[in-house]
Amino acid sequence: MTQNLAQANDLVLLVGRDDKRFFVRLVPGASFHTHHGFIRHDQIIGQPFGGAVRTHSGHPYLLLQVSLFQQIMHVKRATAIVYPKEIGYILLKINAVNGARIVEAGTGSGALTLALARAVAPDGHVFTYEVRSDMQALARKNLESAGALANVSMKLRNIADGFDESDADAAFLDVREPQDCLAQVRRALKGGGFFGAIVPTTNQVQTLLAGLLQDGWAQIEVEELLMRPYKIVPERLRPDDRMVAHTGYLIFARKVDEGAWTPPAAEDRAVEEADDEPAE
Amino acid sequence: MTQNLAQANDLVLLVGRDDKRFFVRLVPGASFHTHHGFIRHDQIIGQPFGGAVRTHSGHPYLLLQVSLFQQIMHVKRATAIVYPKEIGYILLKINAVNGARIVEAGTGSGALTLALARAVAPDGHVFTYEVRSDMQALARKNLESAGALANVSMKLRNIADGFDESDADAAFLDVREPQDCLAQVRRALKGGGFFGAIVPTTNQVQTLLAGLLQDGWAQIEVEELLMRPYKIVPERLRPDDRMVAHTGYLIFARKVDEGAWTPPAAEDRAVEEADDEPAE
Amino acid sequence: MTQNLAQANDLVLLVGRDDKRFFVRLVPGASFHTHHGFIRHDQIIGQPFGGAVRTHSGHPYLLLQVSLFQQIMHVKRATAIVYPKEIGYILLKINAVNGARIVEAGTGSGALTLALARAVAPDGHVFTYEVRSDMQALARKNLESAGALANVSMKLRNIADGFDESDADAAFLDVREPQDCLAQVRRALKGGGFFGAIVPTTNQVQTLLAGLLQDGWAQIEVEELLMRPYKIVPERLRPDDRMVAHTGYLIFARKVDEGAWTPPAAEDRAVEEADDEPAE
Amino acid sequence: MTQNLAQANDLVLLVGRDDKRFFVRLVPGASFHTHHGFIRHDQIIGQPFGGAVRTHSGHPYLLLQVSLFQQIMHVKRATAIVYPKEIGYILLKINAVNGARIVEAGTGSGALTLALARAVAPDGHVFTYEVRSDMQALARKNLESAGALANVSMKLRNIADGFDESDADAAFLDVREPQDCLAQVRRALKGGGFFGAIVPTTNQVQTLLAGLLQDGWAQIEVEELLMRPYKIVPERLRPDDRMVAHTGYLIFARKVDEGAWTPPAAEDRAVEEADDEPAE
Repeated sequence: MTQNLAQANDLVLLVGRDDKRFFVRLVPGASFHTHHGFIRHDQIIGQPFGGAVRTHSGHPYLLLQVSLFQQIMHVKRATAIVYPKEIGYILLKINAVNGARIVEAGTGSGALTLALARAVAPDGHVFTYEVRSDMQALARKNLESAGALANVSMKLRNIADGFDESDADAAFLDVREPQDCLAQVRRALKGGGFFGAIVPTTNQVQTLLAGLLQDGWAQIEVEELLMRPYKIVPERLRPDDRMVAHTGYLIFARKVDEGAWTPPAAEDRAVEEADDEPAE
Repeated sequence: MTQNLAQANDLVLLVGRDDKRFFVRLVPGASFHTHHGFIRHDQIIGQPFGGAVRTHSGHPYLLLQVSLFQQIMHVKRATAIVYPKEIGYILLKINAVNGARIVEAGTGSGALTLALARAVAPDGHVFTYEVRSDMQALARKNLESAGALANVSMKLRNIADGFDESDADAAFLDVREPQDCLAQVRRALKGGGFFGAIVPTTNQVQTLLAGLLQDGWAQIEVEELLMRPYKIVPERLRPDDRMVAHTGYLIFARKVDEGAWTPPAAEDRAVEEADDEPAE
Repeated sequence: MTQNLAQANDLVLLVGRDDKRFFVRLVPGASFHTHHGFIRHDQIIGQPFGGAVRTHSGHPYLLLQVSLFQQIMHVKRATAIVYPKEIGYILLKINAVNGARIVEAGTGSGALTLALARAVAPDGHVFTYEVRSDMQALARKNLESAGALANVSMKLRNIADGFDESDADAAFLDVREPQDCLAQVRRALKGGGFFGAIVPTTNQVQTLLAGLLQDGWAQIEVEELLMRPYKIVPERLRPDDRMVAHTGYLIFARKVDEGAWTPPAAEDRAVEEADDEPAE
Repeated sequence: MTQNLAQANDLVLLVGRDDKRFFVRLVPGASFHTHHGFIRHDQIIGQPFGGAVRTHSGHPYLLLQVSLFQQIMHVKRATAIVYPKEIGYILLKINAVNGARIVEAGTGSGALTLALARAVAPDGHVFTYEVRSDMQALARKNLESAGALANVSMKLRNIADGFDESDADAAFLDVREPQDCLAQVRRALKGGGFFGAIVPTTNQVQTLLAGLLQDGWAQIEVEELLMRPYKIVPERLRPDDRMVAHTGYLIFARKVDEGAWTPPAAEDRAVEEADDEPAE
């Protein structure tokens, strides 16, 4: 077990008394400046997490480890990222467990890539595809900064040209027209493999759904997740005034061998889904 | 890489053309009976996932691997379980990554325990406490069935008497009166350690929040997650008629050394929380 | 002021101690039967609202007036009705106030017609169109039973053939393909008149929106309303386990003279709508 | 029928091509100034609604009637107002129909008062109580501006001292501690009368609920309404990014004669409410 002390090169979180939060990479010789004064990183290195460090003028900052959640929220972004409320759910739905081999497109800023890499570590691997080299460079920097590159292969390619992998446990798409890549995804997945996608509009859901049904995928689901935060005042407990109303629609499915399965007809699909029934 | 074939002792999913789902543990010599006829497990063993197996009367069933999500949903339960939409979020919030050491109470049916064990594998460990021996026995059976016992220590004890661990990375409580165990949780956690809890009522949120604020915990949050499923009909895309409206309130916080931190006053807390601000 | 006593021919609500609710039309000589015994209507007539009436075996039933809300919820229905959570909002959005002249299609079971008739009474009028005579007959029965026919004209006609009215203050459509009737609605409305519609699917929203934008309608809005009920247990306050997740999408717009107005381009529309700004 | 032309003293809505909205009271001799130039009110008076008026530099503004919804949204406010999504629902739940006599406290900025006055017009009446004279003055100005004073009596009094009315059809409270006024509300209501309240926090819901149950009120309900707006882009239909997450909890109940009714025990109340069942 490592000691619970801040180390050189750690990414740490400093929280001021006004609840302002700062993510700081500890570099010997460097300094952290605030409007309450500065702290030299060397004063922070070796200090225990959960305690306070102080600026030269005595202002305290709480020293905390950075969680995976916080790393995800703070990747540098050039585009919208997939958010943790969706990421946690996606990891479970596409079975991103230790040892899994997962293909992903596009890489984007790498927020989901980071979460996938952590989830399949140490024995699994993430193969992430991106068409824009500037975006890939940004994601690489984010993953490197989070120390998550070991389990990731980054590929600069349009997945319309296919994935290199052919036996992936899962595939996830965050691209503009996922319905156009279903054949490529199918070739990349092993039998019964997990498929997931996120799209922002109902039009894209409709098109992707039509493609999945057409191609005979199984266990198709469409879902939205809403997160509602509360004010942390026990004597006046109530939700925040405003909330994020939309980040995207999630679509999941399972790959089926061609011809093995005939999807239920539309009128059956329209019926409220019965809950799963355990057997055994 | 293992072959993508069903093996003896695997837990597999069989899906009928009517979308009925059956979880079956493959045991040589056993049979699976449906109203469309039966299939001998020996016929299933060795078959590729993603294809169909057929009853003696020719009715096809799709053969699929069981995901962690599905294992969680299908633990045998004696009480309400924590649901996957919350579990995925909890795993990220309390930083349940490979190598983490996590204490949990109560074990309940073991649904969250299973997810925690998978998330911290192979190098981490889950220490799960439960007061009821019948419940612990049920959870043990569920974890064993999922092959997840290796990373779990199960303890039959009231956490009012304290945890054995003193340097846990994270703690999660799913107990009736979490506010009464905050001192014990604090002793079990390392500095800056992650705390999470789920409670069903607003009254419990109020009491737990008051306790956390009183004891100077940091980064306190209260949140609800809502999951809205859609009918999978592309030409008539719309949400399901009904949805689960409530499974629980999630509360998160970080342990702070005593005296290191003064929580903001209530009037400040009531103010809409500013978004985190990256620095570095 | 009328006396607060149940009268012959009143529709009243009887509530048992088990919270079972019965809507009863009081008819001299008739009887109301329950598994706790019977009550003769003559025993109820003349009793004050808010008190109890008793079966011959002494079981009490609470005697209450029936609200408009309850009348709406209990129209006899052959199809899905528009629900009160939407109705209240619709009445305000399309300005259904005393004196307004409103056209509606289709009549359906008459739930919304009933609410519109009450809202525009005593000086306004509702012109409601329906193609199915059996449906119209059902709605007529519901409106008659609620005493709301005085302000309603019922027409058996497909609105593809146009409305008779040409200066309506507002129009509301609950039909399968509202986008096909926009020209007819436009002719029925006065300048600046209010348009509303409810549709169940995202596909219909897309088509109707495209039609409204194409034809230069103003102040177009699309909204969903969600109602979340709570268990009424003060010491364990929490939402119900399940809720209605979808009843329909609401679309509103204002009629504009042809050529008077150019709708903003798509890229502008995509921008988050600014809040209204008061001037004067 | 009045002509569909803007009249002197009308409150009208002017909408710019950039979708900016201005509420203007038409006063002969006055002018309306924008950064696209000015329009003299005399140019607007006599113009048809639904058409455009133009500034001296030729910039068009759409001329529209102001709806009740818009009047409510644009009352001048000194405090939070009750919002239309709740108001429409409240009107139906407390049976605010033509002829009803309704007591309300506090008046606040008069947004709900305005809606109640319109709903009970022309034969009903609203008695609205307020303790702060500055607030009452503001509400009076808002009601006068909307032409809604005829059906309203405004009283400057703390309802702890009781209402003057004793046979009201309905009562609505938007006060800080509604549970302290239940005896006064009971005396103001007729038997079976409708009670409604809005409170922002779960703590207030708990206290009010306890009071209502203690005093034997019937048909108690607690509900929240959420409104989710969509971007009006048919080819990319999706919800807005953010939404209002909380405006208040709604509580409804019916007055019952003392001793006539024993409320169900807590364990029964905790059970999912059965839907109403029609009889007759």
